[in-house]
Amino acid sequence: MSRGISKSDKNFSFGRKCPWDNENDPDALVGNMRGSEPLINDQTDSYQLICEKYPSFRERSENVDLVVEISLQPWKVFKPDGVILFSDILTPLPGMNIPFDIVKGKGPIIHSPLRTAADVDQVREFVPEEFVPYVGEALGILKGEVNNEAAVLGFVGAPFTLASYVVEGGSSKHFSKIKSLAFSQPQVLHSLLQKFTTSMARYIQYQADNGAQAVQIFDSWATELSPVDFEEFSLPYLKQIVDTVKQTHSQLPLILYASGSGGLLERLPLTGVDVVSLDWTVDMAEGRRRLGSDIAVQGNVDPGVLFGSKDFIAKRIHDTVKKAGNSKHILNLGHGIVVGTPEENVAHFFEMVTKYVDTGERTEMNGPASLDYQITKGGTKRNHHCKNGLTVKQASHTRDFQKGVEMCLDAKNSFFEADKGVAPFEHPLFSQDENGYTTRCPTLIRARIRDRSTSRKFVVLNHDLCEDG
Amino acid sequence: MSRGISKSDKNFSFGRKCPWDNENDPDALVGNMRGSEPLINDQTDSYQLICEKYPSFRERSENVDLVVEISLQPWKVFKPDGVILFSDILTPLPGMNIPFDIVKGKGPIIHSPLRTAADVDQVREFVPEEFVPYVGEALGILKGEVNNEAAVLGFVGAPFTLASYVVEGGSSKHFSKIKSLAFSQPQVLHSLLQKFTTSMARYIQYQADNGAQAVQIFDSWATELSPVDFEEFSLPYLKQIVDTVKQTHSQLPLILYASGSGGLLERLPLTGVDVVSLDWTVDMAEGRRRLGSDIAVQGNVDPGVLFGSKDFIAKRIHDTVKKAGNSKHILNLGHGIVVGTPEENVAHFFEMVTKYVDTGERTEMNGPASLDYQITKGGTKRNHHCKNGLTVKQASHTRDFQKGVEMCLDAKNSFFEADKGVAPFEHPLFSQDENGYTTRCPTLIRARIRDRSTSRKFVVLNHDLCEDG
Repeated sequence: MSRGISKSDKNFSFGRKCPWDNENDPDALVGNMRGSEPLINDQTDSYQLICEKYPSFRERSENVDLVVEISLQPWKVFKPDGVILFSDILTPLPGMNIPFDIVKGKGPIIHSPLRTAADVDQVREFVPEEFVPYVGEALGILKGEVNNEAAVLGFVGAPFTLASYVVEGGSSKHFSKIKSLAFSQPQVLHSLLQKFTTSMARYIQYQADNGAQAVQIFDSWATELSPVDFEEFSLPYLKQIVDTVKQTHSQLPLILYASGSGGLLERLPLTGVDVVSLDWTVDMAEGRRRLGSDIAVQGNVDPGVLFGSKDFIAKRIHDTVKKAGNSKHILNLGHGIVVGTPEENVAHFFEMVTKYVDTGERTEMNGPASLDYQITKGGTKRNHHCKNGLTVKQASHTRDFQKGVEMCLDAKNSFFEADKGVAPFEHPLFSQDENGYTTRCPTLIRARIRDRSTSRKFVVLNHDLCEDG
Repeated sequence: MSRGISKSDKNFSFGRKCPWDNENDPDALVGNMRGSEPLINDQTDSYQLICEKYPSFRERSENVDLVVEISLQPWKVFKPDGVILFSDILTPLPGMNIPFDIVKGKGPIIHSPLRTAADVDQVREFVPEEFVPYVGEALGILKGEVNNEAAVLGFVGAPFTLASYVVEGGSSKHFSKIKSLAFSQPQVLHSLLQKFTTSMARYIQYQADNGAQAVQIFDSWATELSPVDFEEFSLPYLKQIVDTVKQTHSQLPLILYASGSGGLLERLPLTGVDVVSLDWTVDMAEGRRRLGSDIAVQGNVDPGVLFGSKDFIAKRIHDTVKKAGNSKHILNLGHGIVVGTPEENVAHFFEMVTKYVDTGERTEMNGPASLDYQITKGGTKRNHHCKNGLTVKQASHTRDFQKGVEMCLDAKNSFFEADKGVAPFEHPLFSQDENGYTTRCPTLIRARIRDRSTSRKFVVLNHDLCEDG
């Protein structure tokens, strides 16, 4: 899973703050961040240049070659653990008989907003194979291109969030039209929400069948509802999507993104998703407590942190990692990267993530031995037994940081499951170089140190990265 | 305190969603709500008409006659318990040597944004008497005009929120400039925040001295910070303001407005304010639990509710009142009223508020006997002792609603304190008419039923309304 910033984090912000939704911020991705050295130009056209050549957002997001090129840009530069499909949550709409356009400086325009039962009757069920074959094709190419060095991630819009666009007619500040519908003719809205639910469940299955290894569901606007209304107009539909997808794709990790959910956290696990994206307005430790221990978290770092000093960035990453604890955490920004972010700070973010997460340079990160790894001072070789009594193995990396990384791998929740009995660092995926033990798949081991116990699905996901590679 | 909607609720939304901040929503107040019968035109020019005559927001908010006229508009129509000064949180800026303008469709423009230590050095301390005498004059006139039938409410911007405007140069989506300052040169920002803190404390004192009977502090943008950053850049300054004001105005109720605070609730009482404004994205019952029992709450009703059916509006008011419990609650919207709100629904809101709050028509509102009043079925006369063993008195109103209102008044926390020993309904402010006991000051008794235990200050505030009147 993505641990850091990617162009596609920008995609992950759709709905809440769409790139096409901000006059001052048109189609802003990594490619047009300001920085002394535009890293991304080393290999490909910047996203900005692509936008000049192809000014239509819909063209860029519906042309297989462009989708693949744009999706790969940040991965080629920063090597995050995830590559996110370049697309839009509204992409399925024309296939549901809801035409839309994206107008520069205005955002999405739904030409005929849906507000009556008769309008909703005209909405067709979405057949991805038929209406968005380019999505499946692009996912397949992406999976081949990244060659399992990272996970390919898909995404869809949640029913309430999609409904808000088609009822409001586009972006909205106050959501008065959809609230008017919800609070005076709820049955009409429920009928629309059910259509989106059926269609989006199918769209997730389609994405998974074509190469997506995890799928994020965006319910950005559901957080504009009171909790009691969220329980009526969003939660049951999210749950239905998760239940439907799990029937056919039980191993597919599903992530829920709902920024501004500080008043809703306790309700989010009820959807059944595997991971919740936390925004930065919630403290990571408090968020984990309120979400409960069964669910993984990602996000939480304020994108504004990347406007800070390098020391501040390092400190905040460290604090977030520390508060998140030793498992079920995917380090990431809590929202899309902001236009104007110094590119060198993005690079620094990745450097620091690697440092803290991979090596545990800061010893305050120590976790209890019962967790699946811990980082200790000194780096003297010791054998160590986990409280759960499962396989234990230790390795030291003292040369670079005068610290040791001690890992406590349990057979139940490990990608070594298939090789039970093989000590982790004797596993064929690992080798020893002059700095000590390394892995032939650095992405994997980085991801695993943070994520391996996120859930069995994540382990499978990350396992695949190397097994196939 | 205001129990319902007022034009000034719109003021109370400044910062979060400014009327001048929304192209589609220019200067939108009650006066230009769509409705079959523009109630407000019965007595005065609509706000829309005033805007046509005086297109400059600064002129409207800095001219005593206009300020008074606009402030009184919603009160004359809907008779809320509060009349809020028509003004802007940025009004003090020119007096601090920070010129600004409000440009239609763009919002506030700070001509020379402050971003360096040298910039901050140029900021002067605010002397309200000297720079905004029209505010004091308007407050004085308002106090006379409303003649203690309602409370006159003032407001100020919180240091972080003011700083965000002057550092960003106006409104912002991502707050990248102030975050850049906060996360790379925090001492420069702290220096600016301290100047706003000193000045706003003084401004609150000035407003109170000139007629404001409670003051709301707007920290709309502090909720864009991570909790750890809120603790550094907002909380200590809010606390300092509260501490300073309480030294000279210990009885002045201070209200904190910070929408989007679902991740911050537990921290808000640490500011020392008397009341927290909850937005609607937090469940009222959960919000109360998280805020603790010492603090009063107001707000919480989604302004979008007013786009719903009349039945829905009634139901939501009832639910909110029920969840809020029997004390320390001021019923209100959680944000400013939205353009396009049907005016008849606003009227219905007030009608329903009166019904539920004043008469306890719905008996599910029953609270435990230890609270300072309860509403019971039947209305048979009973004496009743509070758990705290203090003065108890009961009165019944059975004729209209077949229900009784039972009040448990404690001497410690009562506006009858000065008349200890006088039974409440024998108090000179009360009389008995054909419907049972009533009060000569209906606003007072309505407010007291919900608010009397909000805090001693609120009791004093509401008491004053009648004592002076």
